[in-house]
Amino acid sequence: MANPLTPDVLLDPVVLTRALVDIESVSRDEKVIADCVEDVLRKAGHLSVRRLGNTVMARTKLGRAQRVVLAGHLDTVPVNDNLPSTVVDDLIYGCGTSDMKSGVALALHLAVTLPDPRYDLTYLFYEAEEIESEYNGLNLVAEAHPKWLQADLAVLLEPTYGLVEAGCQGTMRVRVHTRGRRAHTARAWRGVNAIHAMGAVLRRLEDYHPRTVTIDGCTYREGLSAVRIGGGIAGNVVPDECSIDVNLRFAPDRSEKQALEHLQEVFDGYELEVTDSAPGALPGLSAAPAREFLAAIGLEPAGKLGWTDVARFAALGIPALNYGPGDPALAHAPDEHVEIGKIRDGSATLYRWLAD
Amino acid sequence: MANPLTPDVLLDPVVLTRALVDIESVSRDEKVIADCVEDVLRKAGHLSVRRLGNTVMARTKLGRAQRVVLAGHLDTVPVNDNLPSTVVDDLIYGCGTSDMKSGVALALHLAVTLPDPRYDLTYLFYEAEEIESEYNGLNLVAEAHPKWLQADLAVLLEPTYGLVEAGCQGTMRVRVHTRGRRAHTARAWRGVNAIHAMGAVLRRLEDYHPRTVTIDGCTYREGLSAVRIGGGIAGNVVPDECSIDVNLRFAPDRSEKQALEHLQEVFDGYELEVTDSAPGALPGLSAAPAREFLAAIGLEPAGKLGWTDVARFAALGIPALNYGPGDPALAHAPDEHVEIGKIRDGSATLYRWLAD
Repeated sequence: MANPLTPDVLLDPVVLTRALVDIESVSRDEKVIADCVEDVLRKAGHLSVRRLGNTVMARTKLGRAQRVVLAGHLDTVPVNDNLPSTVVDDLIYGCGTSDMKSGVALALHLAVTLPDPRYDLTYLFYEAEEIESEYNGLNLVAEAHPKWLQADLAVLLEPTYGLVEAGCQGTMRVRVHTRGRRAHTARAWRGVNAIHAMGAVLRRLEDYHPRTVTIDGCTYREGLSAVRIGGGIAGNVVPDECSIDVNLRFAPDRSEKQALEHLQEVFDGYELEVTDSAPGALPGLSAAPAREFLAAIGLEPAGKLGWTDVARFAALGIPALNYGPGDPALAHAPDEHVEIGKIRDGSATLYRWLAD
Repeated sequence: MANPLTPDVLLDPVVLTRALVDIESVSRDEKVIADCVEDVLRKAGHLSVRRLGNTVMARTKLGRAQRVVLAGHLDTVPVNDNLPSTVVDDLIYGCGTSDMKSGVALALHLAVTLPDPRYDLTYLFYEAEEIESEYNGLNLVAEAHPKWLQADLAVLLEPTYGLVEAGCQGTMRVRVHTRGRRAHTARAWRGVNAIHAMGAVLRRLEDYHPRTVTIDGCTYREGLSAVRIGGGIAGNVVPDECSIDVNLRFAPDRSEKQALEHLQEVFDGYELEVTDSAPGALPGLSAAPAREFLAAIGLEPAGKLGWTDVARFAALGIPALNYGPGDPALAHAPDEHVEIGKIRDGSATLYRWLAD
């Protein structure tokens, strides 16, 4: 196949978005798109290019005092009868338009058109963000080649609809158990009903008042939600076991350890088991490139509430933020689309910030 | 196979119990035992015998003013490494010893040894009591040949450990739903959590005070138990649906309609769906044969809390009670057994009552 990412296409981030969308790249099937991207980056000449699996890394080596990573994932969720792309007025429709090939287009356009940026730049186009983290290209690079990620700031071009969303909240899931004693329901008083006992746990959830925390001007709104409940043995048995899964979304001023301590306090007296946990990431907007980026964009940052790959950079001590043209509410939707105006705005902003 | 229920065996209800136990007859596999029982009854001469599937009915036609049914099921739960039977001191061990071949032995012994009872007697040895009611032999007879069941009193020889347990409680299962609105748990405040909403339902269960009701000297203790709870969509989704299954065991002074009205009152304001229901049965101990039975046994009756086939007789307007030598707590247990003394006591009591 001839590479559809021709020099002409690369010159216009809107045209480039469509071209990238039209290279189907569902998670675990990113070889073709990674080949096309690697080819383009190698031809650029001013970049040093490396590859790991279907993740492609390219960087400038200009000896600048500071380095910025621009990162985007190449994969999409499964196609939902929404390829190839179509254009209706100012909108490009298609799988991956918002999440996040429009963001990838901004980075790839910069990579080939800006040989002399204000900071040294590292471009990272990675595989398998939409699936289990064992396949996540950013994760694999962090393990195999952590030096590829070293920088003073990372910008993930995930959909934010042109806003700056900094850091991210952590997430922890715990299972809370209640125990009882089995009995036949015809002699219910001989048993202790573990489902009835769960009432007191639900009461604590109802009475819970989540915090709202502001850090570096970014506001994080916490939440504590039951996400599953289960119990019961048979239609005529008083059950001796019930469990509930609870998801805490916590602001990045709490560590995972502190989040767990908080949950132990909320569910004091109950058996509690952690089933899943990921740390948050502080916004880290005090670094010079971040301050300059905020100046270039002219917007106040907001806190990112969902968990994103910025936390993987934070775990390496690298401040990270999300900034992309897509609308996050449209990610994974069958009518996924992106506004052409948002792509042009985003490209102009990045140039304003990065062109020396 | 020669019929192991020989004339000698039939003369002793203890020996007969062992012989019946040793004819394996797990539900849906009752042909052999039904053949043996039918053969014995036909040979008795004074009985008129009929068969439906693996259910055998035999009756006297002496023109007595009153008729009593003696009924027992031939099937057992699956064998649990507890056949053939063994005897240790006063105990016979084995699958079905308590539930309810010792009871069947009492009836079969009477059938062949008491040609001239005080009332006309109908013996009913039926299949498939331990499984879904569509297979239940008593049920099938009630549909196909309701006249076989006509009587002034029915005695089910289910295990009661030699007590008289009269009538039975009804049972009703309802599903109570709570609804909410889905949202991502990172933005939990945009949703309404249906699991949290279930807290108020559980509170009503915790606060519930069940009635204790005495009818004809029999005490019935009601109960309201959650038997299943379920809800949840994914680990990061505020769920919009949760449901709980609740089992009401109700005294026979309530009809099914009244039981439902009661549940509608308890769960007022919630969506409620009946998933299963069976009426209770009044003890009906005022009929003459019942009063004479109580006099012969010399014990106060108790209310039956679990649902049993007596309710099938009650539905036909026939008072019914449970009376058998087995211990109900041992039914379905791997170490199921019956006391030889209880078999002899039961046989003597029935003779005292029924021999003219």
